[in-house]
Amino acid sequence: MENRGTIQHLINELTKLPGIGRRTAERLAYFILKEDGGLGKSIADAILDVKRRVRFCEVCGNMTEKELCEICEDNRRDRGLVCVVEEPKDVWALERMGTYRGLYHVLMGAISPLDGIGPEDLRIRELLNRIEKERVKEVIVATDPNVEGDATALYISKLVKPLGVPVTRIASGLPVGGDLEYADSVTLSKALSGRRPL
Amino acid sequence: MENRGTIQHLINELTKLPGIGRRTAERLAYFILKEDGGLGKSIADAILDVKRRVRFCEVCGNMTEKELCEICEDNRRDRGLVCVVEEPKDVWALERMGTYRGLYHVLMGAISPLDGIGPEDLRIRELLNRIEKERVKEVIVATDPNVEGDATALYISKLVKPLGVPVTRIASGLPVGGDLEYADSVTLSKALSGRRPL
Repeated sequence: MENRGTIQHLINELTKLPGIGRRTAERLAYFILKEDGGLGKSIADAILDVKRRVRFCEVCGNMTEKELCEICEDNRRDRGLVCVVEEPKDVWALERMGTYRGLYHVLMGAISPLDGIGPEDLRIRELLNRIEKERVKEVIVATDPNVEGDATALYISKLVKPLGVPVTRIASGLPVGGDLEYADSVTLSKALSGRRPL
Repeated sequence: MENRGTIQHLINELTKLPGIGRRTAERLAYFILKEDGGLGKSIADAILDVKRRVRFCEVCGNMTEKELCEICEDNRRDRGLVCVVEEPKDVWALERMGTYRGLYHVLMGAISPLDGIGPEDLRIRELLNRIEKERVKEVIVATDPNVEGDATALYISKLVKPLGVPVTRIASGLPVGGDLEYADSVTLSKALSGRRPL
C-alpha cells in the first residue's frame, strides 16, 4: 500500500529506540497518526529542542544548556568532593536526595567487555585530569552496585589512589524499608559483610 | 536544574503516548539525547511527515496520502463486498492475508459505553450511506471478537439488514495450529456452537 511508506518509515525509526519492538512501534505510530490534539508535532518539537539545546558539561559530563552545568558553576558547592556516576540520570537521582553538596563526574557508562565498552570509552581520563588540576579531597564512586559498576569502581580506585586521593564506594546493603525475609542472598551477604558498629 | 526544563518537557510529552510510563519516557528521552547518529532528528521528521501527509480515505476511512486509498481506487476489487473493521491497522492485517478482494469500511473504533464511545462516534452513518448509494451485495463484519466488537457487529447488522443487504460475521473458534487442551472455555464453546458439516 502506498500510504504504508510514510507510516512504515516512522515505525522503523521508532523500533530503533531501546525497549520498543515492532508491535509497540506500530501502536505508537498509529496513535500519533490518529491523535489530533497536536501531540505528534509537540513530541517532534521537543525531540528537536533537546537535540539542539541540551549538551554535556565540559567539566563533569552532566546535562546542561550552557558550557558548564549549574552544579559545576555553583560556588557554594564543596569542590573537594567528587562523586563519580555512570550516567547523567544518576546525577538527577542523587540531586533529588537534596543532601549531597559536592560535585559530580559522569563516566557515560561502565566498563562492560561483553558490550565492548572498555575504560577508554569512559570519561576516566577526564577524571584523572580533574584530580590532578583541582584540589580534590575525596572521590566517591557511586557507579551501579552490579558487576559492571563494581568493576568500574575497582578500576578507578586503582588509578586514583596513587594520586594520593582517598576513594570511597557507596554502601551496598538492604534498602531502607525492605524486608530481610525477601532480600536476595547477594544483597544480604553484602549487608552482612558491610556491617558497622552501633 | 535549569537543563531539566528541555528534557523534562520531552519526557512529559512522551508519557502522553499509550503504554509509555514515566520510567520508559525517561529512558527514551535520555537515549535520544545521548545517541548521536541522528536518530532524534529522523524520528522527529518521520512524525511530522506522517502528520502532514497521511490522512484517512474519504470513502472507507483507511490510511492514505491521497483523497481515496489505493484499495478504493483499485478497479479490480469486488465493489459488492464490504468488510467492516475497527481500525486502519485491521485493514493491514487482512491485506497481509492476500486473498480478500473486496473493499473495506473502517469504523475508527468499536461501541464501548465504558470508554464513552457510542455508535455516533463511529463511521456507521457513512457505512449506511455507502450501502444506499453503491451496489453492496454483502457486508462482512470483521470487528474484534470481544465484547465491544460483538456489540458493534450486532448493532450494525440491525441497521443494515432492513436495507436488504446480507450481513455476515467472521468466524470465532480455535486458532489454526492451536491446541484444544489449552484453549480457553469461551473460545472452545464458540468453536463448538460454530461447528460446520464436513
